[in-house]
Amino acid sequence: MTDRTPLRDLDAPPFATRHIGPSDAEQARMLEAVGYETVADLVAVAVPESIRTTRALDLPAAVSEPEALAELRALAARNTVLTSMIGLGYHDTITPGVVLRNVLENPGWYTAYTPYQPEISQGRLEALLNFQTVVSDLTGLDVAGASLLDEATAAAEAMTLARRASKVKADVFVVDADALPQTKAVLATRAEPLGITLVESDFTGELPECFGVLVQYPGASGRVADFRDLAARAKAAGAVVTVAADLLALTVLEAPGTLGADIAVGSSQRFGVPLGFGGPHAAYMSVREGLQRQMPGRLVGVSVDADGRAAYRLALQTREQHIRREKATSNICTAQVLLAVIASMYAVYHGPDGLRRIAQRVHRHASVLAAGLRAGGVEVVHDDFFDTVTTHVPGRAAEIAEAARRRGINVRQDGADRVAVACDEKTTSAHLDAVWAAFGVEGPSVDDLDISTDDALPQGLQRTTDYLTHPVFHSYRSETAMLRYLRKLQDKDIALDRSMIPLGSCTMKLNATTEMEPITWPEFASIHPFAPADQTGGYTDLILGLEGWLAEVTGYDAVSIQPNAGSQGEFAGLLAIRAYHRANGDAERDVCLIPSSAHGTNAASAVMAGMRVVVVACDADGNVDLADLDAKIAKHADRLAAIMVTYPSTHGVYEETIVELCAKVHAAGGQVYVDGANLNALVGLAKLGEFGADVSHLNLHKTFCIPHGGGGPGVGPVAVKAHLAGFLPGRGPVGPVSAAPFGSAGILPISWAYVRMMGADGLKAATEQAILSANYLARRLAPHYPVLYTGREGLVAHECIVDLRAITKETGVTVDDVAKRLIDYGFHAPTMSFPVAGTLMIEPTESEDLAELDRFVDAMVAIRGEIDKVASGAYDAKDNPLRNAPHTADVLTADAWDHPYTRTEAAYPVATLRDQKYWVPVRRIDQAYGDRNLVCACPPLSAYED
Amino acid sequence: MTDRTPLRDLDAPPFATRHIGPSDAEQARMLEAVGYETVADLVAVAVPESIRTTRALDLPAAVSEPEALAELRALAARNTVLTSMIGLGYHDTITPGVVLRNVLENPGWYTAYTPYQPEISQGRLEALLNFQTVVSDLTGLDVAGASLLDEATAAAEAMTLARRASKVKADVFVVDADALPQTKAVLATRAEPLGITLVESDFTGELPECFGVLVQYPGASGRVADFRDLAARAKAAGAVVTVAADLLALTVLEAPGTLGADIAVGSSQRFGVPLGFGGPHAAYMSVREGLQRQMPGRLVGVSVDADGRAAYRLALQTREQHIRREKATSNICTAQVLLAVIASMYAVYHGPDGLRRIAQRVHRHASVLAAGLRAGGVEVVHDDFFDTVTTHVPGRAAEIAEAARRRGINVRQDGADRVAVACDEKTTSAHLDAVWAAFGVEGPSVDDLDISTDDALPQGLQRTTDYLTHPVFHSYRSETAMLRYLRKLQDKDIALDRSMIPLGSCTMKLNATTEMEPITWPEFASIHPFAPADQTGGYTDLILGLEGWLAEVTGYDAVSIQPNAGSQGEFAGLLAIRAYHRANGDAERDVCLIPSSAHGTNAASAVMAGMRVVVVACDADGNVDLADLDAKIAKHADRLAAIMVTYPSTHGVYEETIVELCAKVHAAGGQVYVDGANLNALVGLAKLGEFGADVSHLNLHKTFCIPHGGGGPGVGPVAVKAHLAGFLPGRGPVGPVSAAPFGSAGILPISWAYVRMMGADGLKAATEQAILSANYLARRLAPHYPVLYTGREGLVAHECIVDLRAITKETGVTVDDVAKRLIDYGFHAPTMSFPVAGTLMIEPTESEDLAELDRFVDAMVAIRGEIDKVASGAYDAKDNPLRNAPHTADVLTADAWDHPYTRTEAAYPVATLRDQKYWVPVRRIDQAYGDRNLVCACPPLSAYED
Repeated sequence: MTDRTPLRDLDAPPFATRHIGPSDAEQARMLEAVGYETVADLVAVAVPESIRTTRALDLPAAVSEPEALAELRALAARNTVLTSMIGLGYHDTITPGVVLRNVLENPGWYTAYTPYQPEISQGRLEALLNFQTVVSDLTGLDVAGASLLDEATAAAEAMTLARRASKVKADVFVVDADALPQTKAVLATRAEPLGITLVESDFTGELPECFGVLVQYPGASGRVADFRDLAARAKAAGAVVTVAADLLALTVLEAPGTLGADIAVGSSQRFGVPLGFGGPHAAYMSVREGLQRQMPGRLVGVSVDADGRAAYRLALQTREQHIRREKATSNICTAQVLLAVIASMYAVYHGPDGLRRIAQRVHRHASVLAAGLRAGGVEVVHDDFFDTVTTHVPGRAAEIAEAARRRGINVRQDGADRVAVACDEKTTSAHLDAVWAAFGVEGPSVDDLDISTDDALPQGLQRTTDYLTHPVFHSYRSETAMLRYLRKLQDKDIALDRSMIPLGSCTMKLNATTEMEPITWPEFASIHPFAPADQTGGYTDLILGLEGWLAEVTGYDAVSIQPNAGSQGEFAGLLAIRAYHRANGDAERDVCLIPSSAHGTNAASAVMAGMRVVVVACDADGNVDLADLDAKIAKHADRLAAIMVTYPSTHGVYEETIVELCAKVHAAGGQVYVDGANLNALVGLAKLGEFGADVSHLNLHKTFCIPHGGGGPGVGPVAVKAHLAGFLPGRGPVGPVSAAPFGSAGILPISWAYVRMMGADGLKAATEQAILSANYLARRLAPHYPVLYTGREGLVAHECIVDLRAITKETGVTVDDVAKRLIDYGFHAPTMSFPVAGTLMIEPTESEDLAELDRFVDAMVAIRGEIDKVASGAYDAKDNPLRNAPHTADVLTADAWDHPYTRTEAAYPVATLRDQKYWVPVRRIDQAYGDRNLVCACPPLSAYED
Repeated sequence: MTDRTPLRDLDAPPFATRHIGPSDAEQARMLEAVGYETVADLVAVAVPESIRTTRALDLPAAVSEPEALAELRALAARNTVLTSMIGLGYHDTITPGVVLRNVLENPGWYTAYTPYQPEISQGRLEALLNFQTVVSDLTGLDVAGASLLDEATAAAEAMTLARRASKVKADVFVVDADALPQTKAVLATRAEPLGITLVESDFTGELPECFGVLVQYPGASGRVADFRDLAARAKAAGAVVTVAADLLALTVLEAPGTLGADIAVGSSQRFGVPLGFGGPHAAYMSVREGLQRQMPGRLVGVSVDADGRAAYRLALQTREQHIRREKATSNICTAQVLLAVIASMYAVYHGPDGLRRIAQRVHRHASVLAAGLRAGGVEVVHDDFFDTVTTHVPGRAAEIAEAARRRGINVRQDGADRVAVACDEKTTSAHLDAVWAAFGVEGPSVDDLDISTDDALPQGLQRTTDYLTHPVFHSYRSETAMLRYLRKLQDKDIALDRSMIPLGSCTMKLNATTEMEPITWPEFASIHPFAPADQTGGYTDLILGLEGWLAEVTGYDAVSIQPNAGSQGEFAGLLAIRAYHRANGDAERDVCLIPSSAHGTNAASAVMAGMRVVVVACDADGNVDLADLDAKIAKHADRLAAIMVTYPSTHGVYEETIVELCAKVHAAGGQVYVDGANLNALVGLAKLGEFGADVSHLNLHKTFCIPHGGGGPGVGPVAVKAHLAGFLPGRGPVGPVSAAPFGSAGILPISWAYVRMMGADGLKAATEQAILSANYLARRLAPHYPVLYTGREGLVAHECIVDLRAITKETGVTVDDVAKRLIDYGFHAPTMSFPVAGTLMIEPTESEDLAELDRFVDAMVAIRGEIDKVASGAYDAKDNPLRNAPHTADVLTADAWDHPYTRTEAAYPVATLRDQKYWVPVRRIDQAYGDRNLVCACPPLSAYED
C-alpha cells in the first residue's frame, strides 16, 4: 500500500471481471498454452483481417452493478403499474411466492439448458410432463406439447398442422372473427408466404371450403359460444378444427376436445406467469390422437432407462426442424420451458379445486360486474361470458377508458363505441366499484348483486369432465411441501450453478444476478402489453436503447426485438428479404442458398418464408465451397433471393472467404442472411453489417445473457441494414411475427444490463476470452482427440469440434458413450453430432474460469484413457464404464457388482469427484422405446415401481 | 360446480392453509390415529382448563399474501432511504448480487438449523470457518469465533472474558472515551449487575488499576490512535486489552494482535450485510492463544471423521451455557450465522486485494473530504483517520446536518458543535460535493484534491502483515465460480428445503417466501439505525404494530423487540425484575429459582443479571416438584427475586400446576419469568400474562417464523406485565441490551407478515395442529419407543420425548447412533439428550404435512427394527448400520465392502430413498479429536488429502 493511490485506480473492478471467468493471471497461462504473447496477438491471427472492425464499439461507458440497478430502477419508475383489466389473452395473476423465489429467481432452474441430455434433466422434464398433463387434461385432448412461444404463433402452427393433416385441397383457413386481434395478425403474416388464404367468419353462415377453422373460446369479446355444431360441420367437410382456449376458463367450461376440437392452442400465462409487457409466456398446443407426430415443438415423453425404470426425455425428435431441415413443418427450436414450469407448478400448488375456485371467482366477479352495468343502463353485449364483459357505449368508449385510468384501472377501448373489461385472479370488489364509477354507473353493490345475479356460463358448456386427477396435483398443497418438491426436482438436474455446460453453438455463459433481478420487479413484471404508451415510458426507453446498442454491436442500421425466439428472428429476417425483393419488383426471387453445414432451422425458416432451399456444398475443411456457390448462383441467378450462412461457421471457424461470399451473392442480386448464433465470437471484433451481411437474427439467450431457462425463453431480435429497415415486422408491409408488440419484453432488462455493465471494452474482452478459451481447450484436447476444423495456424473461433469417428470405428465407443460418461464426471455433454455426426462440439464461453476448463479437460483426457482401455482390451468391449454410463447411485451401491471394472472406476474416475459429485437419477435412457410407446402425460405411480 | 357460489366462498384459501402442513383430510386421519373426534376435543384434554384463554386473540383479520406484501410496501414507502454517512459502526455496503440471491434469499441457506449435527452441516461450517479465518487474519489474533450478536454485546463479552482472565482484583474496566456510544451504553447495562465499575478514559494519563481496557480502533470520532504503548502498559499491570476494531480498516491498518491486543471485537456488517435499521449483523471476537477456551459463543473447529479425513464441527462445546448452566460465563446461544456467512462470502468474493482496494477507496474519499473541508475553513478535528471525518463547527452542527439531509445525505450531528461524516464503499465524488455544499464550502474539486492530498493513516500503523492468504480467498473471483461454490456448500447441508427438522424446542416451521421477501427491499435493508425519526416512519409503525400484536398474543402489557436473541431477551427480562425489586426497595431479592429441567441458558442469564441460582427439583414425571418449590421459597423467602420456568415444560408437557406455582411465587414476593421457548404450544389457546407470569422472552425465530439461518439470527423480544413496563431496556433505569435501538429490526417484517397473514384464527389453528402433530408422532412412535413424559390421557404438548436409555442399556445403541442413522434416511436428528440425557425430543411443528410425518415415523420404525437386530444378534454389536452411520457415498461405493450387513441395508433401508437421497459428505465426526487438536481457521489443502 502506498500513499495517495488516486481514486481512479481504486474503482471497483468492472463487472466484466466478474462476468469473464479467467483472471489476468489465468489468461496469461492460457495464452502460454496456446502459444501467443497477448490476446491481441491471438485475435490478430484467429480473426481474418478482412472482417475486423476498425473502431471500438460506440456504447456508453460501462457502469458498475449497483449503478446499473439504479438506472434500471429509474427506468422502472417510468413505467406505471395500473390494475390491468384489458384482457385479450393477458391477465394479471398471482405467482405463488414459493414458485417465484425458487424457480423464476433460482439459477438452479433458470440457467439450465434444453433437456437434450435427458439423464441430467429429469427434474425439468418432470415439470414439463406436469405441464403437458395440465394442458391435455384441461383441453380434453390426447397429447400436449411442452410449450410453444405464444398463443398467436401457436395458432399459426395449428394452421399449418391443419393444412398438413387435412385432405381438403382449398388453401383456405377460416378464422373466428372473435379471435384475438394479435392472433389474426400473426396468422396473416404466416399465411401469406405459404399461399394460404385467411377468411374471417362469425360462423353463422355456410362454412367455405377450407382445410381448417380456428375458434376462440371464449372469444376476444368475452363471448362463450358453443362450437359443437360448427366443429361437426367442419370435420364432416374434412377440415381440421382448432380451438384457441383460455386454460383457466377450461376449469369451468367443457373441454375443447370433448366438444369436437382436433387441436387446442392458447397461453398458460395466467397460471402464475407475470404479464411482463407481453412475455415471455408459455403457449400450449394439444392434439387429438393421430396428430401427435405432426405437432411442432418439443414433446416430453416417458421412456425407460437401462434398468427398465420409467424415465423422461424428449419424444419424437425426428419431427423437429434440426432433423428435417427444409422438409420441416415448423422452425420452432426453443420452447418456453421456464414459464411452462411456472405454469405447471401453479397447477401443482393449487390443484384442480384451487384452479376451479380461482376460475369461479373470476367469473363471479365478471357476472356481478355485468349485472351492475346493466342495472346502470349500460348495454352488455353478450349474455354468455367467462371473464370479459364487453359493453356497447356509443361514442363514450374513450371517455370511459380515461375515467377508468383515473381510477387506476386499464380497460380495453375497442373503437369508439365499445369498452371491454376483463376480470382476473386479482380482481376485487373495489375494482368493480371503480369500473362502475368509470362508466358513470352509481349505486350497484357487489354484495347485493352477488346474491341476485346468476352465473353467465352457458348451461350446456359447464365443465363435466374431470381434470388433474394425478396425485402430483394433490400432494404439494403446503408451502413447505411445494418448496421441497421444487428442490427435489432441481437437484436431479445439472445447470450452470453446478458445472460448465460446454455446448457448442449454445453459448452457456453467466446469467448474472444483477441482470436477473429487475425482471421480477413489479414495474417490469406487471405491465400489460397493450397498456397505454404513457404508462410504459420506461419500457420504451429500455427497448429503444437496447435496439440501438444491438445495432451498434452488429453494424446494422435497425433492430427489432419483437421475435421471441431465434427461429422467429430468422423468419422475420427472411420475410424482410422477401418483401424487399417484392418491393423492387423481384417477386420471382425465391431461392435461398444454404450451405450443407447449416443448422436445420435455417432451411425450415426459409420454407416458412415461402422460399425454395438450394444447398451449397462445403469443402473438406467445412467451409462453403465457393466453386459450388458460383455454380448455384449461376444456376439460379434470376431467382436468387438470399444466402443464409452462419458466421463464424457452424464448424466454429472464421471462414476467410466470407467477404468474397457476400460480394458474390450481392453481385447476383441476392441478399446475405447471416445467422447470429455464433455472434459471441464477433462482438467488438467484427460487425456483421460491416463485412457484407444484410440481415441477421441475434440470440439474446446466447450472446446477451438471457438464461436458457431449461429450454426457453429465447429472444431472437432481427437486425438489418437500412434498405431492409422498412420491412421489419410490424413496421411496414410485413406483419408481426409474435403476439406481443415487443415480444418477450419482460426479460429485455437482462440484456440491457449486460451491455450497460460491460461497455465496449468489456464486450470485446469477453469475445477475446471466448476465443482464447476455445483455443485453449482445442490445444489441450488435441493430443487426445482429433480437432476437426481449424482456421489459420490451426486456430478455432469460439468453439471447437473433436472428432470421435475414427475412435468409434476402432473401439465401438460412440459420442453417446462419451457424452453419458461425462455425466459420471459431473458434466453436461458438449453438443453431440452437430454439425457433423460422430463429433462433439465444445464451446466454453468466456465465463468459465481456468479451474473449470481444466477440470473438463481432465475429464476428457481421463475418458480418452478409458477408451484406450477398450481399444487395448483392458476393458470389455460391451461391459465397460463408457457403455454403462451414466452410473446411478443405485447401480454403484448395489449389493451385486458384476462388472469387470471396479465401482471406484465407475464412480470416482478422478479424485476431485470426492469433493463434489453429481448423482444422476436414472441410467441411460432408451430413446426408441419411448417413441414406440408414446406416453406424454404423468404416468400412474405404478409405472415407477421396479 | 353450481351457479351462484357467492364471492365470499370463492376467496383464496387463507395463508394459514399454506403455512399449516396437513390438509383437513390429513388432519382428520391424524385425529383418528390419536383418538379424538375434533381438534377442539384434543385440545380440551391436552391443555389444562386453568390456563386456557377465554376469548379469541384481538388481532386484525388475516390478509392474503399479496395483500400483506402490499401493506408492507406501503410501510416501506414510509421509510426514506438517504445516503448514509453517519458511521458509528454501521456503514453502507454492496452485497454482491450472487451472495444476496443465493444466500440471503435462498431457503437452502436461511432455513438451516444450528450445526449441532455437523455431518449434515459441512457447508455452513466451512463458510463459518472462512469467517473465522477472515477475523483471525485481519485482527492478527490466534482464534476467532463463529460470530456474536452485535459489536456492543461482543464488547461486553470481552469485558467479562477479561475479568475472568485477569488476575487483577479491582473490578474496574476502562473504556475508551472514543468508543462507540452504543457500546458504552451496553457495557454499562452489563457491568452493573456484575459489580463492575466502568471508567471512561482518553488514555492520556495514568491507567487506573483495572482488569481490562477497551480501545476503539479507529475511534467513534474517526481518530486512529496508536495504542501500542497503552497495551504494553495495561498488560504490564495485568489487565487484558480488548480492541474494538473495524474489519475493513484492518485491511490497511496494522492488526490489533500485532499491536498488543489480547482480544478483538467488532462488527462484520460492512462486509456486505445490509444496514437493516441496525441488524441483524454478525459481530466477531478473536483472542490470543490461551484465551480460546474462555471465549463465549460458537467456535467452529476442524476435526476428523471416522475415516480420519478433515471435517468441521463446533468445537469446545463444553464451554457453552447449556452445559455449564449457572457456571457459564456467557448466556450466548445463537450466533449470527447467516450474516457471518454473507460477510465471509464477501471476503471470499473480493479476496485480500479487493478488500484492500475497497478500504483504500473509502479512505481516499475521507482524505479528500477532509482536505476540502479544511480548504474551506472548516476545522477537522483529527489528522489521522480511516473513514470518518469529525469537524468542529461551533453552533452550526444542526444546520449543517439539515443542509446535508436536504442534499440526500445523513451525517452525524454530535451535539451543537460537531459534525462527523463517514465514507463507505458506496461513497462517490458526488457525495463529497454534496457534503462540502452542506458545510457551505464552495470550490473544492475532488479531482484536484485527489492529486494534492496525502492519505491520513498514521505512518507507523499502516498494515504490514499479510491476510487471507488461504486459497479459498483466491479461487472464486468470477460470479460463476462464486455461484458454484455457494451451491456446492449448500448441497452438503440439510435444511428445511429438503426435509423436516424435528428439533424439540426449536420449532423449525415454515419460513414463508412472502414473509422473507420484504427484508431485502431497499426501504427496509438500507436504513441506518440512527437515521432521523422522520425517515423511519415505516419501521416505527411496523415495530409498534408488531410489539402490540405480540403483547396481545402473550397477554402481556408491553413488549420490547430490542433483544436480538432469546438469551438477550432473558437477560432483559431478569434485569426488569431486578430493577423492579430495587425500585420497591427490595434490592436484597437476588435469588432466582430454576427447575432442574431448565435450559442451561436460564441459569446463565440469571447469573449475568446478578442473581443467585437455586435449583428446584422435578418429580418423576418431569414436572416441578411443588413440595421442593415450597421448601426453596421458604428457605429464600426474603431474598426471592424470581422463578424461571418454561411453559409448556422443557419436557413438552403442559404442567397442570403452573397457576398454583405462579401464585406461590407471587405470595412470596417473587416474580414469575416464563421462558417463551415453547410458545408454539400456547398461541391462541393460552396467554402467559393471563395465567400468572410477569415476564417472558419470546423467540421470533421459533414461533414467529424468522428463519434460523444456520444458527442465527435470533430475535428475542421481552414481554412484561404493566408493573414491569418501565423497566424494559432503554425505557427507564435499565439500559439497552443491544447495540441498535431496535435490535435486529431488519428482519421484523418476517414476523409482522406472519401475524398479519395468519390472524387470530390462523395462529390458533397452527397451535392446534402443532399439538395434534406432536401427539400423532407420539402415538405412532409409542409402540416402538417409550414416550417419556405425558400429561392428561397420555397426551403431550407440541413435542414429545422418546426414551432410548433402556434400549441403549440393552443393545449399546445410543441416541447418537439413532441420530446419525437418521441422516442415512435423509433426516436431521431430533434434539439429542435435552432435557434428559439418552433421549430424543421431537417437535414436528404445524408446517409438516402428513406425508413427511409418516416418512419420519417410517424411518424411526425402521431404525427400531435395526436396533432389534442388534439386540437379537442378527446385526453385529459393533459393526452394524447404526454404529457406522452415517454412510457416505465413498463408503457405499467402495470396492471393498467388509461389513456384515449389505450396502442396500446401509444406503436404502426404505424404498422411498430411491426417489430422493441425501448424500452426507463425511462420516461420523470425532468430536473429541478436534477439541484436543484445536484448529479454528481454514486448514491448508493438504489436510484434506487422504
